[in-house]
Amino acid sequence: MSLKGKVLVAQGGGPTAVINQSMAGVVLEARKFMQVDRVYGAVHGVRGIINEDFIDLTQETTHNLESVAKTPSSALFSTRDKPDEKYCKEIFEVLKAHDIRYFFYIGGNDSASTVQIVNENAKKSSYEFRAIHIPKTIDNDLLVNDHTPGYGSAAKFVSQAFNGVDLDNRALPGVYIGVVMGRDAGFLTAASAIAQKFPDDGPHLIYLPEVAFDKEKFLKDVKETYAKYGRCVIAVSEGIKNEDGVPIAKELMSKVEYDAHGNIVLSGSGALGEKLAKYVKENLGISRVRSDTFGYLQRSFMGCVSEVDQHEAREVGERAAQYALWHNMDGSITIHRTGDYSVDYRLTPLERVAKYTKCMPEHFINKAGNHVTEEFKSYLRPLIGQDTSTAHLLRAPMVEKILGKKL
Amino acid sequence: MSLKGKVLVAQGGGPTAVINQSMAGVVLEARKFMQVDRVYGAVHGVRGIINEDFIDLTQETTHNLESVAKTPSSALFSTRDKPDEKYCKEIFEVLKAHDIRYFFYIGGNDSASTVQIVNENAKKSSYEFRAIHIPKTIDNDLLVNDHTPGYGSAAKFVSQAFNGVDLDNRALPGVYIGVVMGRDAGFLTAASAIAQKFPDDGPHLIYLPEVAFDKEKFLKDVKETYAKYGRCVIAVSEGIKNEDGVPIAKELMSKVEYDAHGNIVLSGSGALGEKLAKYVKENLGISRVRSDTFGYLQRSFMGCVSEVDQHEAREVGERAAQYALWHNMDGSITIHRTGDYSVDYRLTPLERVAKYTKCMPEHFINKAGNHVTEEFKSYLRPLIGQDTSTAHLLRAPMVEKILGKKL
Repeated sequence: MSLKGKVLVAQGGGPTAVINQSMAGVVLEARKFMQVDRVYGAVHGVRGIINEDFIDLTQETTHNLESVAKTPSSALFSTRDKPDEKYCKEIFEVLKAHDIRYFFYIGGNDSASTVQIVNENAKKSSYEFRAIHIPKTIDNDLLVNDHTPGYGSAAKFVSQAFNGVDLDNRALPGVYIGVVMGRDAGFLTAASAIAQKFPDDGPHLIYLPEVAFDKEKFLKDVKETYAKYGRCVIAVSEGIKNEDGVPIAKELMSKVEYDAHGNIVLSGSGALGEKLAKYVKENLGISRVRSDTFGYLQRSFMGCVSEVDQHEAREVGERAAQYALWHNMDGSITIHRTGDYSVDYRLTPLERVAKYTKCMPEHFINKAGNHVTEEFKSYLRPLIGQDTSTAHLLRAPMVEKILGKKL
Repeated sequence: MSLKGKVLVAQGGGPTAVINQSMAGVVLEARKFMQVDRVYGAVHGVRGIINEDFIDLTQETTHNLESVAKTPSSALFSTRDKPDEKYCKEIFEVLKAHDIRYFFYIGGNDSASTVQIVNENAKKSSYEFRAIHIPKTIDNDLLVNDHTPGYGSAAKFVSQAFNGVDLDNRALPGVYIGVVMGRDAGFLTAASAIAQKFPDDGPHLIYLPEVAFDKEKFLKDVKETYAKYGRCVIAVSEGIKNEDGVPIAKELMSKVEYDAHGNIVLSGSGALGEKLAKYVKENLGISRVRSDTFGYLQRSFMGCVSEVDQHEAREVGERAAQYALWHNMDGSITIHRTGDYSVDYRLTPLERVAKYTKCMPEHFINKAGNHVTEEFKSYLRPLIGQDTSTAHLLRAPMVEKILGKKL
């Protein structure tokens, strides 16, 4: 109950708009406990631990921590390193050397795996140690969780971006393709639908990694929509795959780049959107076809944050500190929806959250596989918060023609 | 002084976040005048005039007009048509047929030219007619004007986007290239600098269409920055050109697309950013090089608006109606900075605003031609408004190493 020692907090993987809320939650809560000597932050995640690159967050002002909490992206910086057994053993050695007894790792499923292995190392060595994984990912793909911190704010960005480009596309009609992050899970791309208000609002078509992408079907969808509305706004997930599971990005690109995890680099490249645009242009003979790849803007844009997401990100950090320091427990903090809208946080065994990813369930995807259901919209709506803008259109009547000639 | 008849308002060119403020300003102000029968809106700009596609804005509720004013993109829709003499004559014939005596066209320098030609047609026919051009462009490239409505909000988007990607780049270092709209004028790209707060904040390099782009010099700049900070964030204007005035986008692309004005289509393509990224990767051996092309997000993103820009966009609309209806005058409304920060609006002869574009003056660009000056920042700061987020970084001290080993 009163294991004396140091606390270490680290951030892993891709930044989010609210990841610093979780860090501030851990630090501010942990600093209240008598058994805590110091609260360290690892600089650049697990790599920082190996390098003993720690900063002493006990000496950070509360006021600045509160300001950093509101700043997007990982204030402790991040890493793409995916530790193996040997790496985790090294992590454990450093933690032991610094008398770190509480370790909090804010990240996705890879980070949960890391926490799990480090924990096993500690158990084997009979080193008294508490390690907790704190959920974070804009992809919303963590198991057990109803949703994950970071998703609501990124979803808000995607929603407001599509709301804007849809209005733009009304003004200057054509086909517009917006490519959204999401390798295996389509939750973020699906968020493009949430701002739809008028019956002909875009995105008219949504393609997710969960549904095998068929190029012929895609063309048919675009053709039909264009015939109906004289324009077509499309949301595409960067991770869309063909029937054999081959990413369309790979199918279309001549040269692909792989990251440290052996995954194709999908972000920072507009190739998918452009190839799809070219495909539409060449096959349907529509002249104005444009594509944007939202890229890094969607995960760290300043000033686009969901207050619900902010609140929950802070609480998962605080709850993690409480589970470890009050209750002396290990695990992964998970978010559970208890009402409409309310949540509760639980401590879940790490192995239930680690490694695997959660995808969009079937009832969130429409039958045609090219849009979302109302059920998905009900699920997402509370997560993006109240403070969103709404589009308004003119509704004045048409004036009767006098000359009646056409250009 | 009391020329009786109808009012027509239209919107041209690329949408902005505040273009509907100007429309609402014209409509609400014009509806107050006794000599005004009806206030029409042309659907899809000048093309809508030719087609007699008018809506009767006299029958639009004030409340909805106020809501539409806050909605980005052109509520009356737009067109890329650039009318010639014959087209303007047709416009004039339609205006006459509908007894339109007051014409307000919200747009850039092309729109000013259109207003000028239509006006000349009216004079030749001794048709009593007032036509006023209302400034609008995110490019900020209209002559005479200190700045243009639409620019402040787009600048705010670019600034907040760079603020976010810079934080992202701190967390996961590498080279990042963000491509911003701007064919001939670099004002919008230059806005990437305004959120810089800490001494090592990006963008570290800014390339504008006003400065001839030298690929060797660019590589040298990136190399030096990367050596200094271990990372490099770069803002590039889509319109950068080489010494001979050839767009770099054209130099790098195998196939280019032209719009109705005979200009290369620069937006809706990530080619420039990707080619530059590839160039850096291949020549400097830096592995993590990413690029984003901001595309259409930057001109119509929901919820990213400068309240100063909103205010001024409304006022230029109102002033236009006043000049025409009270004072019976023609021209282009122009914005003049009278203090720090205050503005005044004047009526300027159309020929002084039409046709040509304004570029970044020399004193806004640094000597090395790869960044902006403090003078530019002072110029821009008031335009993006007060309601902006600021980044905060951790400043806690480093902890002494115990093991002292390196990965």
